[in-house]
Amino acid sequence: MAGAPKANAVVGQSGGPTGTINASLAGVIEEVSKRSEIENLYGTIHAVEGIIREDFIDLKSLSVSVLEGVASCPSAALGSSRDKPDEEYCRRIFEVFKKRNIRYFFYIGGNDSANAAHIINVMAAEVGYEMRAFHIPKTIDNDLLVTDHCPGYGTAAKFVACALMGDDLDNRALPGIKVDVIMGRHAGFLAGATALGRQRDDDGPHLIYFPERTVPMDKFVGDVEDVYTKFDRCVVAVSEGICDENGVTWTERLVKEQEKDSHGNIQLSGSGILADFLAGQIRNKLGAMRVRADTLGYMQRSFVGFQSAVDIKEARRCGREAVKCSMAEQSGSIVMKRVGDGEKYAIKYGCTELRNVAGASKTMPDEFINSTDNGVTEAFVNYAMPLTGGLPKTYYLGNNPKV
Amino acid sequence: MAGAPKANAVVGQSGGPTGTINASLAGVIEEVSKRSEIENLYGTIHAVEGIIREDFIDLKSLSVSVLEGVASCPSAALGSSRDKPDEEYCRRIFEVFKKRNIRYFFYIGGNDSANAAHIINVMAAEVGYEMRAFHIPKTIDNDLLVTDHCPGYGTAAKFVACALMGDDLDNRALPGIKVDVIMGRHAGFLAGATALGRQRDDDGPHLIYFPERTVPMDKFVGDVEDVYTKFDRCVVAVSEGICDENGVTWTERLVKEQEKDSHGNIQLSGSGILADFLAGQIRNKLGAMRVRADTLGYMQRSFVGFQSAVDIKEARRCGREAVKCSMAEQSGSIVMKRVGDGEKYAIKYGCTELRNVAGASKTMPDEFINSTDNGVTEAFVNYAMPLTGGLPKTYYLGNNPKV
Repeated sequence: MAGAPKANAVVGQSGGPTGTINASLAGVIEEVSKRSEIENLYGTIHAVEGIIREDFIDLKSLSVSVLEGVASCPSAALGSSRDKPDEEYCRRIFEVFKKRNIRYFFYIGGNDSANAAHIINVMAAEVGYEMRAFHIPKTIDNDLLVTDHCPGYGTAAKFVACALMGDDLDNRALPGIKVDVIMGRHAGFLAGATALGRQRDDDGPHLIYFPERTVPMDKFVGDVEDVYTKFDRCVVAVSEGICDENGVTWTERLVKEQEKDSHGNIQLSGSGILADFLAGQIRNKLGAMRVRADTLGYMQRSFVGFQSAVDIKEARRCGREAVKCSMAEQSGSIVMKRVGDGEKYAIKYGCTELRNVAGASKTMPDEFINSTDNGVTEAFVNYAMPLTGGLPKTYYLGNNPKV
Repeated sequence: MAGAPKANAVVGQSGGPTGTINASLAGVIEEVSKRSEIENLYGTIHAVEGIIREDFIDLKSLSVSVLEGVASCPSAALGSSRDKPDEEYCRRIFEVFKKRNIRYFFYIGGNDSANAAHIINVMAAEVGYEMRAFHIPKTIDNDLLVTDHCPGYGTAAKFVACALMGDDLDNRALPGIKVDVIMGRHAGFLAGATALGRQRDDDGPHLIYFPERTVPMDKFVGDVEDVYTKFDRCVVAVSEGICDENGVTWTERLVKEQEKDSHGNIQLSGSGILADFLAGQIRNKLGAMRVRADTLGYMQRSFVGFQSAVDIKEARRCGREAVKCSMAEQSGSIVMKRVGDGEKYAIKYGCTELRNVAGASKTMPDEFINSTDNGVTEAFVNYAMPLTGGLPKTYYLGNNPKV
């Protein structure tokens, strides 16, 4: 194949922001600065929308201090978009690429972003326009195919682990039943991460529910009652995507008017409806005990100043790898492969074909969910713990010997 | 007056946990360890409930590493209680004090805790039982009288500031209208703290609503529309305690069955009802734009690993001061007096009579709320900023010059 063309590049950020999508952007910028093949690096404002509007900024002129500031700041510094480009949309993007001599496209996002990069790449090949399209994975849901895990997940996992550590201490201090609804759409990885902070045998969350298993209400309330009987308190983490016996999400059943975003995904977050419903179910069946419910909300993806150091490092490296790969390959999606576990946790970086990631997603493997469908396994903890970059130790004195 | 008696002491933690109530506990423990007058230091498990049950642990034997661990861990390491002791309850406490030769009582909590200490102190004086009762302030609501601010508030302020910084970046990335409901009961200090992270002229929260001002729905929706017209997006922080024109909280109006805790306070937190209602009001009046809502929930008081360093230091000092004061005085509530502002921020510690703090609370002073009742003043920012211990810088590139 031909050498890497001398041309311009564009980088964009798509979908829901994460704590480390800007670290990936910083990785792209720093690696591009070393590559003479890439003349201008355009940042597109609001992803594919910005390309069509030619709403570009110059990223090569950023100062080092701004670059480092961006790298450590959550959310999408270029703005994002929920647009899911079809063939016609991609054609308009492609016109701008030709006009601006853009022959490198780096797109940080989920499977829809991989798909957009794929369509544009195929389109370019069909007309013999030499260009290179690379997808850099990001999502707090951790549901992308091929890669061991997704940049963005470790930070969200750290956040929910610390949230539940605190909530469990709070529940020890003022005992009762607490329900916390966790993001993750149709994958339970983030809900599972609420278990990572457990340090004592009776630490919560005592129960975790996943979208991968149906959650009948009688089982849910029965499980809560069992824990409450044992510990006089109960902390429950529930994925926003949990389903009833018919595979319909409880939220779908609860929300009369379903607001849909333009990807056709149901909007599961940002509402207290599931949390309040579950708290009500518990109250109705178990009596007037102290039951509280929280929906952790957008903080899970956007909270400032609390990212996982491991996640930031990996996300940045993924950005750099995309640029490196673009010097030798036509297209691809960056992949992390785990080559060491536990204290020897290590990742090797590679690249897979865009079509292997585009438009599909994965869920929690069976070996990560316990046999009673209400908790995680040791295998899951071993998988997810290294991604958080370590969690604080907590203290409770109420079980000390009495005097 | 007589010298400090040689006797035992008890320390307890009451009311809603905070990020630094354990730092105050650590302060009590370390100062007691220097005082030969105090023989045993009992920690009461679950506050006044534990005293009656004689559910005590020995706090003098804690290792230094556990003491430091407790000091940096949120929530109440001794457990807490919502019990509000009346005269009869205090009489039972007093019986245990006499039985165990307890003549020092350190109680970390809100105004109800100051009141409990006051009642017990008066009771002891009446029967000539020499004892000393001290209240150590804590609350995330920052609503205690006399003291400049309350330990626990700075950490909660830092949390909500970083939450809104992130949420505002998220809202820049995917524009729309976002409503965040903030704790604080009937005081707006915590809602006001959401403003502390603003760094650019168009940073959110663009609107903040306080319990100290009535919030008619037409004004609320009109304000949101004005901001949205100007910025094509809007981030709103709302105190959970906002009231309608009749002084009734919106939550009271919304919750049919009001669950009350045993202090007679309405339970305002832990439910998405206010957030979802406000989002619905905006959607109904302004059309089908992207409107989202979160209730920040218990994380505001319990999140692990994110405390304000200033708050931890001050909370610990308040614990130590209580023990010091007990060597010279009969009773009191620890008070922080501000003696320097801005970069010269400094606090002097003192003590006020229990009755000056007991059973009453304060709200935001007028000079902290802007003239349009929907934001804070510079005076508030100057007041609250030092308490957070500093906030991270954030970055957004979408306003950079176009190329």
